[in-house]
Amino acid sequence: MRVLGIDPGLTRCGLGVVDGSVGRPLSLVAVGVARSAPDDPVAERLRVIEAEVELWLDAHRPDAVAVERVFSQHNVRTVMGTAQASGVVMVAAARRGLPVALHTPSEVKAAVSGSGRADKAQVAAMVTRILRLDAAPKPADAADALALAICHVWRGGAQSRIEAAVRTARTQQRPRAVERSRP
Amino acid sequence: MRVLGIDPGLTRCGLGVVDGSVGRPLSLVAVGVARSAPDDPVAERLRVIEAEVELWLDAHRPDAVAVERVFSQHNVRTVMGTAQASGVVMVAAARRGLPVALHTPSEVKAAVSGSGRADKAQVAAMVTRILRLDAAPKPADAADALALAICHVWRGGAQSRIEAAVRTARTQQRPRAVERSRP
Repeated sequence: MRVLGIDPGLTRCGLGVVDGSVGRPLSLVAVGVARSAPDDPVAERLRVIEAEVELWLDAHRPDAVAVERVFSQHNVRTVMGTAQASGVVMVAAARRGLPVALHTPSEVKAAVSGSGRADKAQVAAMVTRILRLDAAPKPADAADALALAICHVWRGGAQSRIEAAVRTARTQQRPRAVERSRP
Repeated sequence: MRVLGIDPGLTRCGLGVVDGSVGRPLSLVAVGVARSAPDDPVAERLRVIEAEVELWLDAHRPDAVAVERVFSQHNVRTVMGTAQASGVVMVAAARRGLPVALHTPSEVKAAVSGSGRADKAQVAAMVTRILRLDAAPKPADAADALALAICHVWRGGAQSRIEAAVRTARTQQRPRAVERSRP
């Protein structure tokens, strides 16, 4: 399976694509960072991030997208932009019918390093080892995106399939209860 | 000018369209609420909200979109979903090249009622009076969306034009400094 990992952000949005399956070696497909200009209005910055993510979805056609789950306890100054960016990248994947999985930072750290409290350097070192790279991906957001993708292959695949099955079963059982607005 | 006001949310996203200009009576064009099913995955909920906002943009072709500015101090349990929804609706407008303005709840309350600390009932009563409606729009999210649109007509129009002019001047002066990632 091919997974696009996304570490959402307005200033730097980490993107990493990994191929692999549980129990087999994983391989790096692509890694990078989408950036937007801090001086631009937020709506325009989000549009730039979205356009870049669309390019990655077109270029790499992942089977699933793994996004870091944003918590409001984090840095209050930047968390709103991070949450907005995460919403935008999630909906870009959902529009294409791709499964979107959320993993917490602790889950990602535990998946790649065995410890939920690993630091950035440790995560980057493990990503480098797992993907057999010559050097650690930089910046940290890029390494984090790859760690998310690795985490998803190792722990997320089965979970996604279970959730998809539950969704399908639920959709077949009951009519949608969503009330429509009238434009 | 025609303004679409959006009170962002995952469970209820208020939408209100108002026609008018400073110093002339404002009129209601449309009001409603987009909803998503709380049991669905967040990515799917955001997709439903986005699809509804796209319908409204198609149907009413606003000149500008006014979105409530989300603060992280608010209800921590729901603020992440609200921020994600706000990102999605902002980018939907930005994709169409529409100016997006953010107004804080206090600015909106002050614009329609004269007090930044007005309660929901007071805001709904003033929206009803300003738009000469027979009854207050319900639910509160719908009234809030109309209040946002009214606030934008009254205080935002000039500000948007200034920002657009600054943006244009800046774009002409310097090349874009945004570093591109390589998909």
